[in-house]
Amino acid sequence: MLNPADTGFRATLAARLPEGSLSDADPAHLTEPRGRWTGHGLLARPHSTDEVATIVRTCAEARVGIVPWGGGTGLVGGQVMPDGPAPVILSLERMAALRAVYPEENAMVVEAGMVLADVHANAQAVGRLFPLTLASEGSARIGGNLATNAGGVHVLRYGNARDLCLGVEAVLPDGSVLNGLKRLRKDNTGYDLKNLLIGSEGSLGIITAASLKLVPIPAAEGTALLVVDGPQAALRLLALAQARLGGLISAFELIGRAGLDFLTETLPEIRQPFPTPPDWMVLVELGLPEGLDPGAALEGLFEEGVAEGLVLDGIIAASEAQRQEFWRIREMIPEANRRIGAVSSHDISLPLGEVAGFIAGCGPEIAALGPFRINCFGHLGDGNLHYNVFPPKGGKRADWDAQRDAIKTLVHDRVHALGGSVSAEHGIGRLKVGDLERYGDPSKLAAMRAIKTALDPIGILNPGAVLRAL
Amino acid sequence: MLNPADTGFRATLAARLPEGSLSDADPAHLTEPRGRWTGHGLLARPHSTDEVATIVRTCAEARVGIVPWGGGTGLVGGQVMPDGPAPVILSLERMAALRAVYPEENAMVVEAGMVLADVHANAQAVGRLFPLTLASEGSARIGGNLATNAGGVHVLRYGNARDLCLGVEAVLPDGSVLNGLKRLRKDNTGYDLKNLLIGSEGSLGIITAASLKLVPIPAAEGTALLVVDGPQAALRLLALAQARLGGLISAFELIGRAGLDFLTETLPEIRQPFPTPPDWMVLVELGLPEGLDPGAALEGLFEEGVAEGLVLDGIIAASEAQRQEFWRIREMIPEANRRIGAVSSHDISLPLGEVAGFIAGCGPEIAALGPFRINCFGHLGDGNLHYNVFPPKGGKRADWDAQRDAIKTLVHDRVHALGGSVSAEHGIGRLKVGDLERYGDPSKLAAMRAIKTALDPIGILNPGAVLRAL
Repeated sequence: MLNPADTGFRATLAARLPEGSLSDADPAHLTEPRGRWTGHGLLARPHSTDEVATIVRTCAEARVGIVPWGGGTGLVGGQVMPDGPAPVILSLERMAALRAVYPEENAMVVEAGMVLADVHANAQAVGRLFPLTLASEGSARIGGNLATNAGGVHVLRYGNARDLCLGVEAVLPDGSVLNGLKRLRKDNTGYDLKNLLIGSEGSLGIITAASLKLVPIPAAEGTALLVVDGPQAALRLLALAQARLGGLISAFELIGRAGLDFLTETLPEIRQPFPTPPDWMVLVELGLPEGLDPGAALEGLFEEGVAEGLVLDGIIAASEAQRQEFWRIREMIPEANRRIGAVSSHDISLPLGEVAGFIAGCGPEIAALGPFRINCFGHLGDGNLHYNVFPPKGGKRADWDAQRDAIKTLVHDRVHALGGSVSAEHGIGRLKVGDLERYGDPSKLAAMRAIKTALDPIGILNPGAVLRAL
Repeated sequence: MLNPADTGFRATLAARLPEGSLSDADPAHLTEPRGRWTGHGLLARPHSTDEVATIVRTCAEARVGIVPWGGGTGLVGGQVMPDGPAPVILSLERMAALRAVYPEENAMVVEAGMVLADVHANAQAVGRLFPLTLASEGSARIGGNLATNAGGVHVLRYGNARDLCLGVEAVLPDGSVLNGLKRLRKDNTGYDLKNLLIGSEGSLGIITAASLKLVPIPAAEGTALLVVDGPQAALRLLALAQARLGGLISAFELIGRAGLDFLTETLPEIRQPFPTPPDWMVLVELGLPEGLDPGAALEGLFEEGVAEGLVLDGIIAASEAQRQEFWRIREMIPEANRRIGAVSSHDISLPLGEVAGFIAGCGPEIAALGPFRINCFGHLGDGNLHYNVFPPKGGKRADWDAQRDAIKTLVHDRVHALGGSVSAEHGIGRLKVGDLERYGDPSKLAAMRAIKTALDPIGILNPGAVLRAL
């Protein structure tokens, strides 16, 4: 059993840290974006890896839990502990330094508390790109992005957060520091602890700094909105684009009619791209090297798509302003969703070959439960859909809450049966611990528990996240 | 303590397996390419994952060790256990089936015993590329490639073996089967056991099948040999190429004068590309999409390289035959090395910014130890050098063996001091257990031991590989 971070503990810890390191937690550190949980605990804001290690050692001695805290933008409650003995909320916000940048090596070493947008800016300043791109990049911090293996719109081309990380420095549950900030492209010296920590959501260690991969900025970008004849046509168009352009497709995002309708309903100032909102469209972005013209490449793709009966209409962005307008449509859909209020949201992924069948089959089953509206959109290139279910027009989420579990079970059961994942990019946190137990491979769960117990025998790191607290 | 796979154990295991599953180990399963070790043990060749699980469970009950065996091409002795109680040598060679292929998804599921060249052929048959490319691809098996996180010549563009794997099926040390064959691009449901198993060299689980990433075949390829003004010039040329061509550089291999001289000495039938062997050259390969001409791209790079003073001479392959001739030079260097006989070989990686300084500084220090010849070549784009030290011309390796430890320590100390790795792509096996203990981060080693003990408490899986047997 853990102990609370009480007055006595606070005094002990305060004596080991610089003045001002500890405070009562403010509301910003006790809530999360969807308003499902409210946390409690003592806020610690260390300035250095040594101070993080001191906090972890002190917590281990006193058997006090620790909730690591990045930018607080997680959507599964990994950053908020609503019950149990009050933990230390360990925020990395004061550790936001750029430690070093190596443009010729396409590498950069940053502290975990750096805001993702600042990581982008630091890369840009040396003529490079850090491709991890998320709606929350203005407040999410890189340590949290790594702890949750964040995804976003550029995974198709550049991979998830773990693929963009060369090494991590982390404090382990016994307070020891893992010095793993190598910036090597090949290193086969022992077990891959980097990838074990990435995606463990702060339950195995606290990432304090990371060595990141940078990439060259493409010489030219091109963006188009293409109206497609359904999700299967979108996937065939993706295969066609990959055959023509290989790894040069930077984004391939699906947008359904519901998303456009929701924008009209809640954010009418956003200009609709087509006079009649199409049932399905894709946002395609190319990033090309010198010698290839993005306009010509997109036109070629459009023409072949039309000839194959996949594409019905389309607009190629003619200016940077229009490009941003296209992206704004995609990026404001989550905000429209928030304003309408989902009964149940699902961050799922499927093998690409199962995506269209899933969409076609799931809709009627949900319709059988009630007159719901479905907004299905997302990172089609990765098989990652945000499949969100809303009340009928004019209805209120609260009136349909009783159906939430039935909807969620229906969606997740179907995803699981098709070989998909019930958490594509948001992680497990506290929201999906039960889903992981229900759908996870039993051998995987047993191995996860064995690893958690081996590295964190007292269970102080993010208790109740990913795995049920013992 | 472990027990030997003795007559009684053999009878017990035989009763649980189809006839013909067990045999005395033949020399092919008891030796390794460099002839350093000779193994012993009972050979088991299961036909299915269930049979692998039966073997592992039976070994766990009887406390008998298991040495997983792929194609036997590993260079660090991971596949050969020379001492201790006789283990079961578990060869995956009878599990070589193609389970499924999904060209539209760029994915394929294969059993662990499939030879890498057959993985290539199966991908090619559906118009795709599986990019992992190694000298030993005709005999290495994909399970071993994954267990050792193999590298090779295309890492620069496509990553290491782990980057080409979507999921694994594996038998864990308790005989349970981890069903992880999902073919998803995004899946954040719990700890990353896939990457923990990949690179663990059979010490945490036995990979029985894998879901692999395929990529589109580039529309056109171009290959050139460019004479460069030293390693630093080569690295600047690489940066230049990346700025021009982003992710389209498929290979960037460094070849030094010694490699060319060794070919002349041992394989004179291989045609030298330049009348006078240059001190340093690079083999550059591009894989381009439609619309870009590889000849023009290489010429542009050559001209800019000359203008910047980096490139002194060059030949662009004018035919597929010439392209293969260029690759043959690169690929036969290891054979030339074998014929001459290295005193000490080093598979090292460095941050790209440290490569040139390492080469410049290490040579004189080795010269101070004796009149050695150094053949430094390899995957420069990844910072991965094969830095091999040979006796003087006419000398014999045996006469210089006494110097081996001093040379190895000198090279590895310097690599470590520069933030490099003493095993870039070959792994730890049994050869480098001491190096890992000497150079590895203490927290990393402690965490590795904790994980090994948690998952394999008896220590039956590949005893003595990666970590010293307890």
